[in-house]
Amino acid sequence: MMIDWTIAPITAIASILVAIYLYFYVNRQSSGTDKMQEIAGAIQEGANAFLKVEFKYLAVFVVVVAAVLAIFLDPIMAVAYVFGSICSAVAGLLGMTVALKANVKSAHAAKQGLNKAFPIAFRGGAVMGLAVVGLALLGISVVYALSDGNAQLILGFSFGASAMALFAKIGGGIYTKTADVAADLVGKVEMDIPEDDPRNPGVIADNVGDNVGDVAGMGADLFDSYVASIVAVMILGVIPGVASFDNIMVNVPLIFAGLGIVASIFGVAIVRVGKKGNPGNALNMGTYLTCIIFGLLTLAATYYMDINFGVWASAVIGLVGGVVIGITTDYFTSIDKAPVIKTAEASQTGAAVNIITGFSYGLVSIFPPLLGIALASFGSYTVAVAYGVSGVYGIGMAAVGMLSIVGMIVAGDAFGPIADNAGGIAEQAGLEEEVLDITAKLDAAGNTSKAITKGFAIGAAGLTVIALLAAFQNIAKQALEEAAAQGITLAVTEEALNFNLMDPLVLTGALIGIAIPAVFSAMVMLSVGKNAFIMIEEIRRQFREIPGLKEGKEGVKADYKSCVDIATKGALKELIPPSVLSIAITLAVGFIGGIQALGGYLAGSIFSGLIFALLMSNAGGLWDNAKKYIEAGAFGGKGSETHKAAVVGDTVGDPFKDTAGPSLNTLITVMSLVASVFAETIVLNALINFV
Amino acid sequence: MMIDWTIAPITAIASILVAIYLYFYVNRQSSGTDKMQEIAGAIQEGANAFLKVEFKYLAVFVVVVAAVLAIFLDPIMAVAYVFGSICSAVAGLLGMTVALKANVKSAHAAKQGLNKAFPIAFRGGAVMGLAVVGLALLGISVVYALSDGNAQLILGFSFGASAMALFAKIGGGIYTKTADVAADLVGKVEMDIPEDDPRNPGVIADNVGDNVGDVAGMGADLFDSYVASIVAVMILGVIPGVASFDNIMVNVPLIFAGLGIVASIFGVAIVRVGKKGNPGNALNMGTYLTCIIFGLLTLAATYYMDINFGVWASAVIGLVGGVVIGITTDYFTSIDKAPVIKTAEASQTGAAVNIITGFSYGLVSIFPPLLGIALASFGSYTVAVAYGVSGVYGIGMAAVGMLSIVGMIVAGDAFGPIADNAGGIAEQAGLEEEVLDITAKLDAAGNTSKAITKGFAIGAAGLTVIALLAAFQNIAKQALEEAAAQGITLAVTEEALNFNLMDPLVLTGALIGIAIPAVFSAMVMLSVGKNAFIMIEEIRRQFREIPGLKEGKEGVKADYKSCVDIATKGALKELIPPSVLSIAITLAVGFIGGIQALGGYLAGSIFSGLIFALLMSNAGGLWDNAKKYIEAGAFGGKGSETHKAAVVGDTVGDPFKDTAGPSLNTLITVMSLVASVFAETIVLNALINFV
Repeated sequence: MMIDWTIAPITAIASILVAIYLYFYVNRQSSGTDKMQEIAGAIQEGANAFLKVEFKYLAVFVVVVAAVLAIFLDPIMAVAYVFGSICSAVAGLLGMTVALKANVKSAHAAKQGLNKAFPIAFRGGAVMGLAVVGLALLGISVVYALSDGNAQLILGFSFGASAMALFAKIGGGIYTKTADVAADLVGKVEMDIPEDDPRNPGVIADNVGDNVGDVAGMGADLFDSYVASIVAVMILGVIPGVASFDNIMVNVPLIFAGLGIVASIFGVAIVRVGKKGNPGNALNMGTYLTCIIFGLLTLAATYYMDINFGVWASAVIGLVGGVVIGITTDYFTSIDKAPVIKTAEASQTGAAVNIITGFSYGLVSIFPPLLGIALASFGSYTVAVAYGVSGVYGIGMAAVGMLSIVGMIVAGDAFGPIADNAGGIAEQAGLEEEVLDITAKLDAAGNTSKAITKGFAIGAAGLTVIALLAAFQNIAKQALEEAAAQGITLAVTEEALNFNLMDPLVLTGALIGIAIPAVFSAMVMLSVGKNAFIMIEEIRRQFREIPGLKEGKEGVKADYKSCVDIATKGALKELIPPSVLSIAITLAVGFIGGIQALGGYLAGSIFSGLIFALLMSNAGGLWDNAKKYIEAGAFGGKGSETHKAAVVGDTVGDPFKDTAGPSLNTLITVMSLVASVFAETIVLNALINFV
Repeated sequence: MMIDWTIAPITAIASILVAIYLYFYVNRQSSGTDKMQEIAGAIQEGANAFLKVEFKYLAVFVVVVAAVLAIFLDPIMAVAYVFGSICSAVAGLLGMTVALKANVKSAHAAKQGLNKAFPIAFRGGAVMGLAVVGLALLGISVVYALSDGNAQLILGFSFGASAMALFAKIGGGIYTKTADVAADLVGKVEMDIPEDDPRNPGVIADNVGDNVGDVAGMGADLFDSYVASIVAVMILGVIPGVASFDNIMVNVPLIFAGLGIVASIFGVAIVRVGKKGNPGNALNMGTYLTCIIFGLLTLAATYYMDINFGVWASAVIGLVGGVVIGITTDYFTSIDKAPVIKTAEASQTGAAVNIITGFSYGLVSIFPPLLGIALASFGSYTVAVAYGVSGVYGIGMAAVGMLSIVGMIVAGDAFGPIADNAGGIAEQAGLEEEVLDITAKLDAAGNTSKAITKGFAIGAAGLTVIALLAAFQNIAKQALEEAAAQGITLAVTEEALNFNLMDPLVLTGALIGIAIPAVFSAMVMLSVGKNAFIMIEEIRRQFREIPGLKEGKEGVKADYKSCVDIATKGALKELIPPSVLSIAITLAVGFIGGIQALGGYLAGSIFSGLIFALLMSNAGGLWDNAKKYIEAGAFGGKGSETHKAAVVGDTVGDPFKDTAGPSLNTLITVMSLVASVFAETIVLNALINFV
């Protein structure tokens, strides 16, 4: 067959074109009344203000890191790095732009029914999904082609994408929760006014937060994992002396990713919902169909292109694992399942028992996905070995398989905040009850798909970082061999690179590594607390000083912009220390303790990163729904003491699930990429060589 | 020199004799007024009720496990197992008995001043400390002597001790927090009556809880770690074909432990405090002096007995590491340091922000002790290797060094609940303000020493389980060699026993292992919630149904016993599932995935066990003190909204710091011991051999 890796750039371009087409589709829908446009305009303005400042910070960060890469490693690597961050930024910008239009248009269309509102919100999300996979795969292809098949150089691209993800995830995560916590605490708790009420000075910042946190953040996160999984497998497929373009093992991840894009485009096209349909089911059905199409397409490709069957099987194991992890995660956060109901029930005894119960179920929820990741990696390893392929390559392909449908996953995920915003705009613009009902339905579907996506993202990140660890090991081994060929003697031996747990360097590294995600989580959560404190003061001040604001007097408007400013500045200032820390400690461990210590450190950070990511995401989602369960009338309903207790849990859960939890995926990916990019230099120059 | 390992049983017997002497010293002090004796009697009665039921459950559990050991492994191992659990139980019983007398006697002596009250409370604690080390070391010596130097058989003894610890820790932990949470929630929050008020039906159960949780629990925990560290090093010292009695490397941990007892006896004798002295400083000074004496004694022994200098250095590194870990832990929970003050400050914004802030500092607090454990293990490994000793042996000696002063550590720790109880009894008996001031001073000193001890216990457990992992590996290797000698072919190779992180079995095991401590913590915390719920109902019922109780009418008494019963039954019923689970999953992983999977699993559980143990212990202590800081007048003081918010954090922290957190040490030790005991059988019979 004549199909080769160039299917990747072709499908990538197709994906971008479809995204652009959908962009114009969304764009030509009506934006409703002046009032609605005004609110949407304020959200847009706030989001743009955030992005502008974020990109400024990002630019400085990228330039500094690029300079370091250029000076200490390789100028071309630095170029790839910059390119990676730009591609991810463009995808995020495109996705955000359309999301900020789709919200109000979807709210307006809700007047005509669910079947009109849903496609606008979903296609708005699909722009993000398809832009992410399209730009990611196109970017990889460009670097691959221009570097004449140098897979290792793509690491630079991946590192750039992960820098963007780190910023988007942490910055967005801090922003969104600063605004949410502050708006809720003063608005709902102190002033007793409903959510999304236009009197609340924090309401626009809160709406902006949904977009910068969930749309841009999740998009950049999955862009990051997607690229990292592909590059990890490419590196594992390299055979020294064989040109990459002729080596099917290097090209397979590109081919499979390309076919994943085809499946995602189909999936996006298929999803629709009737006037009385269930949008949640429609989204899930779309995801399952995308998986099946991907499985069939890759099976055909495997057959016609003579790809090793074990490789295909590994990818399918990964994909199935991802879906299963998503579904089990859903159990722990679903409003109609035992964990949420029992936590709601426990709230009767007060806030403390609500916290203890929800936290405990969050701890239990760690087990199924970890078992899933364990079985997926074991299964893909074993099946790969059975077909004569290296086992870690199989694990990498499982990650690629899991992430192949990212286009569809991100589409469903970005749908969530669009629907949420649509509801917010409808509420603030005072639309009719029936319209609010429809936007509420969309919002509920968005929450379900968001819960599944989060589990999926963590599972995918788990397999990806394991693959990255293997890639890191591979690079180090190669560097060691080259050094040996040149007669350089080093303290580290090839055997030590197996990261033997009883090796004191590996063990020491691991003990330090497991602490990093914890410290990182603490830093970002403390940032939320600090910023929220400032914003709370500002909201209180406005209620105090602006006459008629609390009463909702005609013509009296809150100063939304000052809250947006506080959230923006705070978030971007606070993201620097944890970002720098995560990179600096990784390099310090490597350059002091050498490659073994770094290997142990990465493994440790992966273990603890997965634990905390799962714990925080799930406990947060669970508290949120326990509160909603009570609001729906159980155990005394809204306004009762039980409800107040549940609100405490919900507020604790906010930074858990939307700031710290989801940032951890990105953190461990970034750490792994930093290690891989510097692996060669560390092998040769680590302090441990010289003592 | 003629000194050999028999120094161990000799010092052990001396330790027991001193404990008995101190027991009689405490016993002959006055117990005060009838009222005081009545209260103390009620506490004693409650504690005895708990112990009686606990020992009944324990007996069944021990018999079942012993039967399994006898049938599947070795009847003599089963005997050692039973012996280990009995020795630990006797130490616990003795310690409890004296603690339950020392509390009221110390309260009475407080009438004459601090310098009279302190020695009674401290010597009461010292009985526990010296009984623990005495019985532990004597037990080990007996098994060692009778088995003609079979170090591996001592594993059975250690396993028995850890079974007792598991019961004491989990059962006691659930008990103490059930009572504490329930008594506080109804008493302090709903009824607005002070702590330790005799009107509260839960007050006796609460006082009992301090003893069964902190005295018996912590004693059994450190008994467990102490024995485990010694046996691990003994196994690592074995040279096939060389009689253990002639092998100094097997005997060193016994000798050092014996000298540690001598140092602890000195330390206990030295501690005293003046009329206006600071009991906290006195305790710390005693600990430091014990360390110095130990260092000098072992240095002398090393010189005269021709012990390898690296072995001594390893032990000292461990000891210093333990102290440093204890001190840094103290920073995060001290009432006058930034973490506590900032958390108190954050409580002004409500309960949720208090939780987020305290939790975040808890996350940060993980880092210093992990770094300490990492450096201690790396340092001891390196120094051992430098002197020609195996590195893991060095790590084991670091654990032995850290635990050598356990006699003194437990003395200081058991002092805490005695002082706490003394305060409670003084309060309930209506003693004068000045007396309450003195018991409050003692209580504060107890809290400080408790915080340090907890960090110390976790650090020691960390090094111990690493040493146990090495011992486990050693046993597996030996089994493999024997199998090879007999011509049996197995799936596992000697190289695979290095627990290479990129081995899919090791990785799969690790991913499962990291989930276990989380699930375990959740189970015990949910138990607390469940039981507290039942007890709360009972306390409310009594206030509702007993006329005059709330008003404190003369002659009206609460039914304390029903609360004691609820706590006892609940705790002991709930400890079975997590105990069985932790053993069953460990065996399942081993018998299915083989020795490699089990190695990864143990390492994973160690990593995550340390993380959660540190997080929960420290966050809990921090919340407790943040509340106390506010109660001392800051940010609105007692009764303010800020205080209410801090009470939520304190209540969340209760099961964190006194149930789940400290149980995790024991959990990971038990898991490691189960694995080691069954290692040989698993090597030969794991399913993975036959597929």
